[in-house]
Amino acid sequence: MLEKCDLTKTVDDEVFNQTISSLKERLGVLQRTLRDQKIPTVIVIEGWNAAGITMVTHEIIQSLDPRGFSLHAISRPTEEERVRPFLWRFWIRTPPKGRIALFARSWYSRALSEEMQKIAWKKSLDTKVTAINNFERQLTDDGAVVIKFFLHIGKEEQKMRLEERERNPLTAWLVTPGIWNLHYHYDNSLPLIDNFIEKTDTGYAPWHVISATDRKYAILKVYSILVKILEKQARSPKSRLTKKEKPRDLVKPKKIQVERKSSPESTFTKEACQEILNNLQIEMLEIHYLLFKRKIPLVIAYEGWDAAGKGGNITRVCRYMNPLGFYVVPIAAPNENELKYHYLRRFIKQFPKAGNIAIYDRSWYGRVLVERVEGFCSESEWKRAYQEINEMEADYVRTSGGALIKFWLEISKDEQLRRFQQRAEDPLKTWKITDEDWRNREKWDLYESAVDEMLTRTSTTVAPWTVVESDDKWYARVKTLQTIIACCQKLL
Amino acid sequence: MLEKCDLTKTVDDEVFNQTISSLKERLGVLQRTLRDQKIPTVIVIEGWNAAGITMVTHEIIQSLDPRGFSLHAISRPTEEERVRPFLWRFWIRTPPKGRIALFARSWYSRALSEEMQKIAWKKSLDTKVTAINNFERQLTDDGAVVIKFFLHIGKEEQKMRLEERERNPLTAWLVTPGIWNLHYHYDNSLPLIDNFIEKTDTGYAPWHVISATDRKYAILKVYSILVKILEKQARSPKSRLTKKEKPRDLVKPKKIQVERKSSPESTFTKEACQEILNNLQIEMLEIHYLLFKRKIPLVIAYEGWDAAGKGGNITRVCRYMNPLGFYVVPIAAPNENELKYHYLRRFIKQFPKAGNIAIYDRSWYGRVLVERVEGFCSESEWKRAYQEINEMEADYVRTSGGALIKFWLEISKDEQLRRFQQRAEDPLKTWKITDEDWRNREKWDLYESAVDEMLTRTSTTVAPWTVVESDDKWYARVKTLQTIIACCQKLL
Repeated sequence: MLEKCDLTKTVDDEVFNQTISSLKERLGVLQRTLRDQKIPTVIVIEGWNAAGITMVTHEIIQSLDPRGFSLHAISRPTEEERVRPFLWRFWIRTPPKGRIALFARSWYSRALSEEMQKIAWKKSLDTKVTAINNFERQLTDDGAVVIKFFLHIGKEEQKMRLEERERNPLTAWLVTPGIWNLHYHYDNSLPLIDNFIEKTDTGYAPWHVISATDRKYAILKVYSILVKILEKQARSPKSRLTKKEKPRDLVKPKKIQVERKSSPESTFTKEACQEILNNLQIEMLEIHYLLFKRKIPLVIAYEGWDAAGKGGNITRVCRYMNPLGFYVVPIAAPNENELKYHYLRRFIKQFPKAGNIAIYDRSWYGRVLVERVEGFCSESEWKRAYQEINEMEADYVRTSGGALIKFWLEISKDEQLRRFQQRAEDPLKTWKITDEDWRNREKWDLYESAVDEMLTRTSTTVAPWTVVESDDKWYARVKTLQTIIACCQKLL
Repeated sequence: MLEKCDLTKTVDDEVFNQTISSLKERLGVLQRTLRDQKIPTVIVIEGWNAAGITMVTHEIIQSLDPRGFSLHAISRPTEEERVRPFLWRFWIRTPPKGRIALFARSWYSRALSEEMQKIAWKKSLDTKVTAINNFERQLTDDGAVVIKFFLHIGKEEQKMRLEERERNPLTAWLVTPGIWNLHYHYDNSLPLIDNFIEKTDTGYAPWHVISATDRKYAILKVYSILVKILEKQARSPKSRLTKKEKPRDLVKPKKIQVERKSSPESTFTKEACQEILNNLQIEMLEIHYLLFKRKIPLVIAYEGWDAAGKGGNITRVCRYMNPLGFYVVPIAAPNENELKYHYLRRFIKQFPKAGNIAIYDRSWYGRVLVERVEGFCSESEWKRAYQEINEMEADYVRTSGGALIKFWLEISKDEQLRRFQQRAEDPLKTWKITDEDWRNREKWDLYESAVDEMLTRTSTTVAPWTVVESDDKWYARVKTLQTIIACCQKLL
């Protein structure tokens, strides 16, 4: 796409002055319309060094109400960001409904600069291309507009601009040897960047390559494209949702079969089990030290029927972990603020740092369980969620170097009744049981088909479900610990 | 306080086993009571290396419902944290109402290890003591319970434990030369730590020094103190609020007088002003480069009457700043989630990184303006806020190395009417004016006395108010830019 861009384009001052102020005004009006229509907008400004990313960004924000946008200048990740999966820092910066997020450099620059250092970078870059395409599609599926610009200049022009910056004492220190080094590799980088752009030029988030030799031309061009796309958007906010397109999914997760069963082959007594558990817990402690030292992250997600024993199970699993290296993420209904974002964001935000274990007490699967059954999301939303979740999990495992373990705690309907009654009678446990639990129980069949569909559609080789037969809670505790340990041993 | 601690105390196994399980159960029940009473709880575990901080933390969380607490293991700050003022990373980790935040090490370890490297550390440690005492008092004033433990062991005991860890291959790598170095300086550190503890041992957040030679004794002691304090708290949730105590304020900000005036001595025409503004903006651009390079942060807060011209003023100030180094923080009414925390937290969270400029469009002064006038907070809350704000601002300036500039944009009541009418008539501006603006205008007198009290009580030498006579908006724009430039020149 870069070759096709005519770098000699210019605009004369008169035309520029006549057009730009009306475009600026229209962008300001559009911002308010999009806010009222609750549309989140992502604008990405990428390009060569010195192509004018800062300048174009600056020009755009001149027309925007500062209360309605966030500007994210993306450079090297901080420590906090480096120990998280690749897209984490971008996910947490996605805009809520009605806001604009402006990225001056983005996941594109980062993917290139992080990957191209590596051996076998072509393959690992492909992993990131898949993750990026999924990410952008998930955002647009959720109603966001994603607009991407690449500011293009030639090698000679870049050299001139870098020299100009070096002559100015205010900016000279910003032109580092690294920037010159990139300049010398301009000709080698061009086809790579071009290829990267091609692979991420999708129907839902297309690229706009802008000739930036003439600064005014670039500003005018960026403005007109922005205004054109957003005006179309504002006129027919739903139109985008119809022109669906399959993502160019380079690596597709394979499905594996699981069976839902509540009653284990063998059962345990509390006493018999205590010793097995103690040994496993000590093993777990050792494994946790090694994960911590080797900076391998682990996500464990618990789902299961009410009263299936998630809480007690989690407590047993944690008992011999070092408390400084794990945490439990309790998931409740999303709050007012969380509802303004893509539903996956609040889960991704809590993904563990390298070397840590995050245990989710309920998870993103709420989308295809409670939200589906109770109608908290639309049918098209939960139907779309299976693919979104599979992608998200696969991208997580591939880019984090860790693992994702998912437990479904299965009990029979009778066993649940027995436990509910027990809780209701025990004064120390009665707080654990609410009217909502009884109401959910009435919808057992609806939940059952949701669970079955979830297990069938989201058990993949990279992130398989483990069904834990939990009618016997002691058996369940042994099985979860054994599963975690087995999974970790493969990682270490 | 450390000398008074008897390090030979032990507990025998029988007593321990009899007592601990009932204490654990009571703590679990208390957690639910505090949640229902919406009381935030801060538990700090400090102590010597190898004194058992991790072990005690682990023991405490065994009894807690993982959905109701967060554990924060505090070690060296990340890059992101390092470029923010000292207490920033702790403020953002304060618990919301009804939750427990458990700190395994805290601001205490950090203050000691960061300050004691410096020349003149005694004075700079005092700055932090003041900031810490203010911080803890602000939290308790807001209804939080703060419980602090120091786990004490002797030098010989520490040596034994470190050697024990070194012999275990799983933990050996954690015993770094730095930890041995601290061990060798045990005797020198003791009086310093003791002094630090004394200075931060307040009525609202007292220290509990625990002999930790016998691990079981330490666990039992920590548990009994926790349960005792929290049970007292749960019985009479309001009691704490009566026993007020002045903080040991080591550095008190000095007040300075400001006058509220809407009409400037001289006025400008748009044309006359344009050239002055252009020159100032270029100066600002240069200054911004230098702040950025020298990593000096700047906070600019705008307050003023509706239609006083905050938006236009902010736009002019930003026009020549590099967009990658500043951001505007628009302040609206706090959302559901923000209301669960101390009101200052959401402002502190947005404080700029070193080298950045944060411009607040409205600010924490909402507490003593709109929240006071509209009754969104109680009288005692806004009355307390003047001191809290003065402390917060002084602590910010002293620990960040930057500055805080506050503008009050003053217009006359007539000028406001004129602008309201103008907005109502202009189709492009009519969105700017709402019924709420007219309602606020009716309360002009109430707001006026709130503004006067605010200017009188919160204009300090470290963070003075600048009243901007804004009947002439061009004059106002020139004055704010001049004020910012003058302030920055003092910093550079």
